[in-house]
Amino acid sequence: MTRIAIYPGSFDPVTRGHEDIVRRSLQLADKLVVAVAVNLDKAPLFTLDERVNLLKTVFQDESRVEVRSFDGLLADFAREEGARIVIRGLRAFSDFDYESQMALMNRQLYPELETVFLVPALHLTYLSSSLVREVARLNGDVSTLVHPVVDQTLREKFSG
Amino acid sequence: MTRIAIYPGSFDPVTRGHEDIVRRSLQLADKLVVAVAVNLDKAPLFTLDERVNLLKTVFQDESRVEVRSFDGLLADFAREEGARIVIRGLRAFSDFDYESQMALMNRQLYPELETVFLVPALHLTYLSSSLVREVARLNGDVSTLVHPVVDQTLREKFSG
Amino acid sequence: MTRIAIYPGSFDPVTRGHEDIVRRSLQLADKLVVAVAVNLDKAPLFTLDERVNLLKTVFQDESRVEVRSFDGLLADFAREEGARIVIRGLRAFSDFDYESQMALMNRQLYPELETVFLVPALHLTYLSSSLVREVARLNGDVSTLVHPVVDQTLREKFSG
Amino acid sequence: MTRIAIYPGSFDPVTRGHEDIVRRSLQLADKLVVAVAVNLDKAPLFTLDERVNLLKTVFQDESRVEVRSFDGLLADFAREEGARIVIRGLRAFSDFDYESQMALMNRQLYPELETVFLVPALHLTYLSSSLVREVARLNGDVSTLVHPVVDQTLREKFSG
Amino acid sequence: MTRIAIYPGSFDPVTRGHEDIVRRSLQLADKLVVAVAVNLDKAPLFTLDERVNLLKTVFQDESRVEVRSFDGLLADFAREEGARIVIRGLRAFSDFDYESQMALMNRQLYPELETVFLVPALHLTYLSSSLVREVARLNGDVSTLVHPVVDQTLREKFSG
Amino acid sequence: MTRIAIYPGSFDPVTRGHEDIVRRSLQLADKLVVAVAVNLDKAPLFTLDERVNLLKTVFQDESRVEVRSFDGLLADFAREEGARIVIRGLRAFSDFDYESQMALMNRQLYPELETVFLVPALHLTYLSSSLVREVARLNGDVSTLVHPVVDQTLREKFSG
Repeated sequence: MTRIAIYPGSFDPVTRGHEDIVRRSLQLADKLVVAVAVNLDKAPLFTLDERVNLLKTVFQDESRVEVRSFDGLLADFAREEGARIVIRGLRAFSDFDYESQMALMNRQLYPELETVFLVPALHLTYLSSSLVREVARLNGDVSTLVHPVVDQTLREKFSG
Repeated sequence: MTRIAIYPGSFDPVTRGHEDIVRRSLQLADKLVVAVAVNLDKAPLFTLDERVNLLKTVFQDESRVEVRSFDGLLADFAREEGARIVIRGLRAFSDFDYESQMALMNRQLYPELETVFLVPALHLTYLSSSLVREVARLNGDVSTLVHPVVDQTLREKFSG
Repeated sequence: MTRIAIYPGSFDPVTRGHEDIVRRSLQLADKLVVAVAVNLDKAPLFTLDERVNLLKTVFQDESRVEVRSFDGLLADFAREEGARIVIRGLRAFSDFDYESQMALMNRQLYPELETVFLVPALHLTYLSSSLVREVARLNGDVSTLVHPVVDQTLREKFSG
Repeated sequence: MTRIAIYPGSFDPVTRGHEDIVRRSLQLADKLVVAVAVNLDKAPLFTLDERVNLLKTVFQDESRVEVRSFDGLLADFAREEGARIVIRGLRAFSDFDYESQMALMNRQLYPELETVFLVPALHLTYLSSSLVREVARLNGDVSTLVHPVVDQTLREKFSG
Repeated sequence: MTRIAIYPGSFDPVTRGHEDIVRRSLQLADKLVVAVAVNLDKAPLFTLDERVNLLKTVFQDESRVEVRSFDGLLADFAREEGARIVIRGLRAFSDFDYESQMALMNRQLYPELETVFLVPALHLTYLSSSLVREVARLNGDVSTLVHPVVDQTLREKFSG
Repeated sequence: MTRIAIYPGSFDPVTRGHEDIVRRSLQLADKLVVAVAVNLDKAPLFTLDERVNLLKTVFQDESRVEVRSFDGLLADFAREEGARIVIRGLRAFSDFDYESQMALMNRQLYPELETVFLVPALHLTYLSSSLVREVARLNGDVSTLVHPVVDQTLREKFSG
């Protein structure tokens, strides 16, 4: 049996923290679908295409990683993909409530879908896409927090 | 590659909550080692042998579950067993800090060892071995919280 | 003395979780005023009239429940209604800080007003109006999470 | 119908924080049973008789307060007393998990028993019996934290 | 060596809670720069000039307090000001995650910059600018929560 | 004015995490008193003399650090030492409640005493003396978590 896991998010943009979780997930699954949410609460900084393409570039050497966008319920998308594992990174305790709520809702919608939480590398704990966007917008250096191609794209975004 | 996971604990005694986590774990691993800690901070209610035997009875029909006791560091035991996944149930946010601390320490001692957190079935969230012991000690009914064989053993323990 | 309690919220829309808290509250008070806030931070999905009417339908058989809308400070509305008890459901620890802050502010504005927190039925813990809206918007099944009349109204809302 | 509430604890010793919760509870119930637990995890500083007598002295002018000791399950004691409300003070978020766990267990053991949480007066939030014992043991002044009779008893306890 | 500390925030408007933290900070630093953020996530109620002027009026007698506005990264502004200490008030545990994240990011951007957290006076714990704005908007009395000049300005703001 | 700060703890034994907090504290104070508590809740692994001597060895090159033991209330000891700042490291949110409680109690006992919280270096966040003791007891390698002299002493302790 091929174990397929799904790692959903907005990835606006992908950070070194996401990369770390992806690499850890490959220990749990044979194939990992990085699932980029089409609809977000807020207007994203990067378009859906940009977010998907950055992820594809960052993971181009990981043959077991597939980058896809999805619209609608995660539970439905997971079912279509044949995935029974959802991966989430737990950066801090404040994520926990929201994350359990989502895990329990997804279990109700698709009982075979198991959500597993991973702890990111310690030096990446404080990282989030929103913090990266904020620092980059104010011309701070984010080169240690994101992949070089993301760093370059952020500079172009904010230099205009 | 056979994926071996390890589920450590004191299991004093095993509850329906532990059973739920074990069954969920079998979706993530080909083989699950339930690892009963020999040394505990407090004197346990059940001896090591009793705790191991109750687990063996409860999981006798799960051929992919193996019950073992361990002494020493979990990281060392996992290495000996060839396990690269540690399973932990996250009942509540207050577990989270301690659990991350342990996960990070185990990662330092054995970098390939990934700790994954699962969310138990909602109706089992409030369950813990200590609560079961306390209620049983006061003659409360715990028959819905533990396996019949554990319920029976608790009654014998406290009837004397 | 008639004990009057008030249960404030946006109820956008009322869920099985709210229903559970209302029924528990009736053990504490002789009369319960479900108080629908007119002004919300975000634009609601349902109009004030819709939210009030759904509540009235859901609780039409509870003679001790009264549904009202209110504008302005909760403390002022409670005083007008002769209520000295505010009911709040505590779904998760992350509610706690905000809820204590509100309880303390309301106590400052109206010292006789006591806020009491209730724990919802376990299987409803992960429920929130925003989760219901989100799942319904993506065509997920919410029929076990809300009253049939709310389910029907959500379908009409999103089928257009 | 007489509403009877029960306020369980170890009261080792009763503090101004407990007094505050008792007075707030009288708004919710016609009669309040302060229930002193006989069996504690740790050896108490005050004997059961001392704890009960201090409470009786402190609340001697509150005719609606009754002080009782109890052994066994709280749910059983509440049933015997005809109480359907359990009162708990929520000092801080770290209490919340344990308190919900107990509330849910008590609901399982006695479904009609509703646990309600109250927020103590702000200046009493940081107070706990263990902090009072610790400060008094080191000869610190606790006269603003406890009733004069408790202060006096603590001095006698530690002067010997 | 002159110890310079910086206290950043939006101060929309300054509350008695901010005043309390400023006065406590003067024990840690020889000079305190109150740094008003120009760019906020949401549109503020008070303009930048109003926020700065209210702060200047409130602290006009504290010769060691300087009120400044800043644009861009806090780390850059601190460096320009020669400040090596950032002051933050910790009102509640829910602030903690966000605050540590910011402290760690600022440390990465400016390693000599140390963030220190202070606990406000207990009776000011539940205070926040947003709560003050909300209560004032609904004609509630906030005269004990803010300086008289802020109270007056809020009345003018909402009387129009 | 000389700013004197005090850093209380049990230091059983001192870890790299404590060392990190001490070095950060020297930015806030002219002199730092590391205050070793004589009386602990549990029997310590190291005697008072051992704990003091390890600290003295570890900080022998920091002329502004003084190592002292204290008995009784921290507030009283701080007053005797002329210290008006208490330093505490905040490793995780679960420390926060207890730490605020202590800060508020100390403020009540000695109003001029300000408690400040610092965030340790990220890679030391998960460290605690109890974790070090536990790992060392089980023959795990703690050489990156403590000073070489502490590592050596732990080995001697557990080799017997």
